Amino acid sequence: MTEKLVYWFGSSGTEGSGELRSILGGKGAGLAEMSLLGIPVPPGFTISTAVCRHYQEHRGSYPAGLEAAVATQVQRLETELDRQFGSPERPLLVSVRSGAVVSMPGMMDTVLNLGLNREIAERAAARGEDPRFVFDCYRRLLTMYGDVVLGVPHAAFEKLLVEARRQQEVSSDQELTAEALDRLTRAFEELISGHGTAFPQDPNEQLWGAIGAVFGSWDNQRARAYRRLEGISDDVGTAVNVQAMVYGNRGDDCATGVAFTRNPSTGEPQLFGEYLVNAQGEDVVAGTRTPQPIVAPEGGQGLAERFPGASQQLHEVATRLEAHFGDLQDLEFTIESDRLFLLQTRSGKRTGPAAVRIAVDLAVEGKISREVALTRVEPQQLVQVLAPGFDEEEKRAAIESEGRLLAVGLPAGPGAACGRLVLDAERAAEWASDGPVLLVREETSPEDIVGMHAAVGIVTARGGMTSHAAVVARGLGKPCVAGAEALLIDEESGTVTVGDQTLREGEWMAIDGARGQVLSGRLEPRDSSVLRSLLGESGAIETPVAASFRTLMEWADQMRRLRVRANADTPDDARVARAFGAEGIGLCRTEHMFFAEDRIGWVRQMILADSDAARQQALDRLLPMQQADFEGIFEAMDGFPVTVRLLDPPLHEFLPRESKAIAQLADQMGQPAEEVQAAVTALSETNPMLGHRGCRLGLTTPAIYAMQVEAIVRAACLRTRAGHRVRPEIMLPLVGSEAEIAALRASVAEVAQRVEAEYDLHLDLLIGTMIEIPRACLLADRIANHADFFSFGTNDLTQMTYGFSRDDAGRFLPEYIEQGLLEVDPFQSLDVAGVGQLVQLATERGRAARPSLKVGICGEHGGDPRSVTFFERCGLDYVSCSPYRLPVARLAAARCLLFEGGELA
Amino acid sequence: MTEKLVYWFGSSGTEGSGELRSILGGKGAGLAEMSLLGIPVPPGFTISTAVCRHYQEHRGSYPAGLEAAVATQVQRLETELDRQFGSPERPLLVSVRSGAVVSMPGMMDTVLNLGLNREIAERAAARGEDPRFVFDCYRRLLTMYGDVVLGVPHAAFEKLLVEARRQQEVSSDQELTAEALDRLTRAFEELISGHGTAFPQDPNEQLWGAIGAVFGSWDNQRARAYRRLEGISDDVGTAVNVQAMVYGNRGDDCATGVAFTRNPSTGEPQLFGEYLVNAQGEDVVAGTRTPQPIVAPEGGQGLAERFPGASQQLHEVATRLEAHFGDLQDLEFTIESDRLFLLQTRSGKRTGPAAVRIAVDLAVEGKISREVALTRVEPQQLVQVLAPGFDEEEKRAAIESEGRLLAVGLPAGPGAACGRLVLDAERAAEWASDGPVLLVREETSPEDIVGMHAAVGIVTARGGMTSHAAVVARGLGKPCVAGAEALLIDEESGTVTVGDQTLREGEWMAIDGARGQVLSGRLEPRDSSVLRSLLGESGAIETPVAASFRTLMEWADQMRRLRVRANADTPDDARVARAFGAEGIGLCRTEHMFFAEDRIGWVRQMILADSDAARQQALDRLLPMQQADFEGIFEAMDGFPVTVRLLDPPLHEFLPRESKAIAQLADQMGQPAEEVQAAVTALSETNPMLGHRGCRLGLTTPAIYAMQVEAIVRAACLRTRAGHRVRPEIMLPLVGSEAEIAALRASVAEVAQRVEAEYDLHLDLLIGTMIEIPRACLLADRIANHADFFSFGTNDLTQMTYGFSRDDAGRFLPEYIEQGLLEVDPFQSLDVAGVGQLVQLATERGRAARPSLKVGICGEHGGDPRSVTFFERCGLDYVSCSPYRLPVARLAAARCLLFEGGELA
Repeated sequence: MTEKLVYWFGSSGTEGSGELRSILGGKGAGLAEMSLLGIPVPPGFTISTAVCRHYQEHRGSYPAGLEAAVATQVQRLETELDRQFGSPERPLLVSVRSGAVVSMPGMMDTVLNLGLNREIAERAAARGEDPRFVFDCYRRLLTMYGDVVLGVPHAAFEKLLVEARRQQEVSSDQELTAEALDRLTRAFEELISGHGTAFPQDPNEQLWGAIGAVFGSWDNQRARAYRRLEGISDDVGTAVNVQAMVYGNRGDDCATGVAFTRNPSTGEPQLFGEYLVNAQGEDVVAGTRTPQPIVAPEGGQGLAERFPGASQQLHEVATRLEAHFGDLQDLEFTIESDRLFLLQTRSGKRTGPAAVRIAVDLAVEGKISREVALTRVEPQQLVQVLAPGFDEEEKRAAIESEGRLLAVGLPAGPGAACGRLVLDAERAAEWASDGPVLLVREETSPEDIVGMHAAVGIVTARGGMTSHAAVVARGLGKPCVAGAEALLIDEESGTVTVGDQTLREGEWMAIDGARGQVLSGRLEPRDSSVLRSLLGESGAIETPVAASFRTLMEWADQMRRLRVRANADTPDDARVARAFGAEGIGLCRTEHMFFAEDRIGWVRQMILADSDAARQQALDRLLPMQQADFEGIFEAMDGFPVTVRLLDPPLHEFLPRESKAIAQLADQMGQPAEEVQAAVTALSETNPMLGHRGCRLGLTTPAIYAMQVEAIVRAACLRTRAGHRVRPEIMLPLVGSEAEIAALRASVAEVAQRVEAEYDLHLDLLIGTMIEIPRACLLADRIANHADFFSFGTNDLTQMTYGFSRDDAGRFLPEYIEQGLLEVDPFQSLDVAGVGQLVQLATERGRAARPSLKVGICGEHGGDPRSVTFFERCGLDYVSCSPYRLPVARLAAARCLLFEGGELA
Repeated sequence: MTEKLVYWFGSSGTEGSGELRSILGGKGAGLAEMSLLGIPVPPGFTISTAVCRHYQEHRGSYPAGLEAAVATQVQRLETELDRQFGSPERPLLVSVRSGAVVSMPGMMDTVLNLGLNREIAERAAARGEDPRFVFDCYRRLLTMYGDVVLGVPHAAFEKLLVEARRQQEVSSDQELTAEALDRLTRAFEELISGHGTAFPQDPNEQLWGAIGAVFGSWDNQRARAYRRLEGISDDVGTAVNVQAMVYGNRGDDCATGVAFTRNPSTGEPQLFGEYLVNAQGEDVVAGTRTPQPIVAPEGGQGLAERFPGASQQLHEVATRLEAHFGDLQDLEFTIESDRLFLLQTRSGKRTGPAAVRIAVDLAVEGKISREVALTRVEPQQLVQVLAPGFDEEEKRAAIESEGRLLAVGLPAGPGAACGRLVLDAERAAEWASDGPVLLVREETSPEDIVGMHAAVGIVTARGGMTSHAAVVARGLGKPCVAGAEALLIDEESGTVTVGDQTLREGEWMAIDGARGQVLSGRLEPRDSSVLRSLLGESGAIETPVAASFRTLMEWADQMRRLRVRANADTPDDARVARAFGAEGIGLCRTEHMFFAEDRIGWVRQMILADSDAARQQALDRLLPMQQADFEGIFEAMDGFPVTVRLLDPPLHEFLPRESKAIAQLADQMGQPAEEVQAAVTALSETNPMLGHRGCRLGLTTPAIYAMQVEAIVRAACLRTRAGHRVRPEIMLPLVGSEAEIAALRASVAEVAQRVEAEYDLHLDLLIGTMIEIPRACLLADRIANHADFFSFGTNDLTQMTYGFSRDDAGRFLPEYIEQGLLEVDPFQSLDVAGVGQLVQLATERGRAARPSLKVGICGEHGGDPRSVTFFERCGLDYVSCSPYRLPVARLAAARCLLFEGGELA
């Protein structure tokens, strides 16, 4: 290995920079860049990610020259700081931290105060250093090293600490005396030895132990699972940062804290964060002491009031760093004896609403271009912007004032939900008809699927981000908190206990899936302000986020090539779709109209008719109803194309299954119940997905399609007469052969011409087909001979190409994802390698046969960013998805033009 | 049109020949060829098939020059025979017959005695011609012309004829006096006029009327349906033959007959046929008089006894023609005043057994090559050779002596069946458990599917060769007689009436689907002699057909490149497969073993186990049973490869569905019935075809495959030790991704190595996969990285590629075929255009990634000749099918090498 393995950073001669992120990791790159900018950063060095790759490939051994290089850098630290590693007189203490290219839960994080040992601590105390400070540092080192390097459970240290507080009758660690801390360090040393390996007193051994722990943790199970979930390659590797310590716990003129350059929840352009006086980094997140806000509410004591100089400097540094990186920064800082040190800067994580507001604000402020602003919002985040969520104030009150936070688990499925607690999947399904239920399980299994469908949210006490519950919940789009280990579930007694609090089945609970929070009692999700504003609800206030959202969408629309349409079945849907920016309807499912209360009776009579005349009579009743729907839709979509799919599901879907409902229907129809039962049974199918449906029905019972086409064309003629610009597109479902579409196209055209003649009009009418059967893709050239357009039905195409029934795949898909056999659920994100081949091939063959062929897609994949990127590359004309996914599609369609090979172009 | 439109034939200057079949049609080519050979043929001329095409394309008009050409030929006839068309003194009479390239039911067939009219008839009688003969000719002309040219129902003529016989108190037409015949012709003339158009007295008008009727009938519905069924192009067209009459009805030294050069039922090498004295052609088939056999049983009066000279000549002609054409000839002849005339020669239709024997005999006699012999047997005919059939003697006795023939309909599904009459599909399903039933319906519809499955055979009173009943029956491989119009079905009273005979539901019936015969009473189908001989049953006599069959198979095996294997699940199956020539087992389905009575209990315990330990306990019980099966199979297949497919169906298929059976199972397992019911419900699936099955089960419940692999490898090791050559191939079902096969291959190999090590053996073991999911085809290159072989599961691949559920497609496939939307059921014959693309692509990609990849197919398509031809072209290594289809596959694999573009190469 001849490449450089170790990079120095600090006020003198920084060797790296922000550019070298892939070598230095995120943290190391930030430290180097800050050093270059002259921002006060304790000096140190970064061991490159190349070492991590070597370590993985050579079973834990380091490349030649690494030890010497590290030793040289340690010497440089010693020289610069005039201290010595392992010296009892002027000891050099360092922190060791991991630093992957993207931050990654599951990996070893931080060991502070490394270089300390019993001798040094005692000598320092003897020398007159504050003994409380010294033993506080040592007990922290023992805890962190024991936990993350030597694998002694953190809880064991915590237990001894609680015991010490109890003995001293104090409530916080800060109040422990030096003697108490000294005793505690001895107890900790014994605890560690009791687990097999004594704590190494040699600082050098400590250093290499910590470095090895970081590199080793790259490959642990949780880290691997996380990478799989996030699509991060195993080859990226992590860096290790070794940095001189500065102390926030050296007295009351010291502090430590975290800060965001803007509010990461709301996007508000104001420094936001928390700090703790006389503390070290982990205290802020540990929750034993309550940190104070940096910007205090009026009258409170913020950082400015407590540390005016450091505060002023922090504000300046924040502004500089944000401008420099052109993005929200997440900072870690320490104040030692009123002097500010920065320990980290990185792009800050933010909520969806904050992402939207910050991206637009930064662009408006001229700090980034509009293109960059578009890349700063993940399309998926828009779902959060539009989804119902808890009012942040209400939730804070529930947690802080009312103490209703039961547990925090993994944020396994975003969204907010509130419902009655149920511990059993079957019961969940039963109770769901009486109101929302939350399913709480130790962990879920395929048998729970029905209950998971019925519940508004899911909580498990065990399992990670790729557990069955997590995978299924995300698939269903339901909020989920996984691995909320604090919950003690007792199925027998029907209770959930946390500490001294016990909830019984039927009591109310609420979860915030984006934060992993579980709350007791009711907390109702509210419609998002952006949604209310988009839908123009009366009284809706245009919030800053809503305004930013509109701006961002405008920029996206200017950028994208792909058109976007909505799947919408009713005039109401159509109006919502327009509000969400639909440039047409890509899928209007006529069967949804069939289920309306005033129609289903006629639909059933039509199905069960024992003569052509009886069937026609029922169809004649349905025609004006369908026609009225289409008139409404055409009006709402004035000027835009509307693709109407003719009847698709098998007829038995419209019939009742329960014997009671059958008896009722028989009564209505004046037929014996046995006859109706026999007809229902005769129509049932073994594999309805592959059964007698779609155009197969249209060909064997032509009267149904004839009625539908007449309703569409009549509505179009009437709306045209009324002055609207109507662009109807009639779509034939489930076509698999040239013969099918040729025959159906002829019948559709015949009816259309007849009705057009009646109104003396010539409509701008297209006739096309769904492409949702593998065979249709293979024979797309022949089918295109008879189709004005193709619309890929990627749901069904995925079912048939993969051989997965969407209704049944819940039994094994989660396990497939857990086992790493599948990266993502192919019903959520298009299987580009397999189904994608067919989409591409059909597009090419179809256009070769008919260059004017319009090609779109109308499955739910139309609202999935990864899939949209693929559709853009295939050169499709449009994507169509549910109205609420339209913003995602619009943004994704723009963004994918800005990237090339994953990099900003 | 400058091509020649009309071709002369006769003893002088024949213009065509047998080579010009596509221009002259089959009949015309035969007449020309016989003329060239100097065989006595009445002279005449053939209007070419090009005229037919012109007629179709120009809405019934003829090409320029045709009328003049026909007139010239008529003049030539007049000159040669010294007679004149339309002359009352020396009238020229001709026949007009259609003559397509292949004979085709549904088309206009024959009009005899054309040129006759009332004036000519009366003048001839007055001139001293036998008046009985003259008016007999005229009444025949009126009947045929009225029926086929003018559309007067044949039954109307028949009715008048019966009336005349009744009035004269005679039993046959022969006995009618000249006066009676004269009266009859007048009645016929009136009958015709009553239908709108008078019978044309002008012979020239008659001639053109008949010619037009032939060309017009090419495009009628029945002819079109037949062509679709047989895959004949609409462009082929028919010729028209105009030929001078000779008279078999001129007195007792006259006769007419049909003869086959060998027996078309048995293949016996002896002239076979029938004749009628003093009759014209149609009398032989009309059935009003019983014809006499040409070769009479001992003591009887055959042709040789009655017409020694003509008989001698006929034998000579037959021998010459057979040798000349190298095939069984079907002859029509007439003897006029002891002189023999040949009216037709063509390749004779024959039964499967006859086809086999004749092909082999002709080759052995040196009349054809072995290659040609192979082309003379349609692979499908071998099914008939092997299928149970009626004993011909028994059936003849039942029909002739016992008068049990109820009706003759269309031969819509070959095979023989005997069962109790049932008129209702549901009842058929109920009764079937008590013994065989025959379902008899007016016509069938999708609701009857269950009953059609349950019945041993199907009869309908209405519908043609492509009716629902016919299509479904052929799909199910069941005998079927369609459109047996004589049957009067009364569902109310549960009876079927024919004439004065009435059968009630529950009474016995029998059908011969290859002949369209419906018989009353019992007639048990017998195993075929060839089958008994192949299986080496004790007491089986090696019949000539069986010997020929073996010879033909040997020739096929020498010729073919494709290997053939059998689908066989048990040691018994394996032995049968060897007898049928299997060169290995291509598909051994382990799940069939699971259903055995001593196992299903353990299988269910395994499925419903509530712990891994309980599951393993059940698996441990199943292991030795599976192992024993495999030992038996490996022994039977010594030296040949055996492909074992690991468990494929979803687990719920092994569980009971009825609540009673569930209660019983719960009882056996000592569990509450509700729990077992809940488990059964939880396992049920919406679309089991696309559900949790195949390798998906293997990955989520690895213990099952581990047990199966252990059983296979253990059996292989034991048999190897016992001195057999064992070639096991383990096949993973339903693989759709590289990850699946990579993971499973590793587990299979691990178990195999462990067991091999135990026996200190290294087996010749292959691990491969079914290719039955479209995605697997698309990613075949990646999957081939982990597979030693591919075996296409074309049943499932067809289901998914076409989106057809095989269990449900019966609802619409028959209608699709009837409407011409599909040519054939894609589950019977591979959809080359669609599914075939995937087969080809997967083969290419798989072999590109792994050149040594073995590729086969193990769906039922492996026994379908058309599909086998495609697999040969794709370069597959083998096909595998059910043992009884193996001869079909072997012959098809050889034959397809002999053809190129449909022509013999």
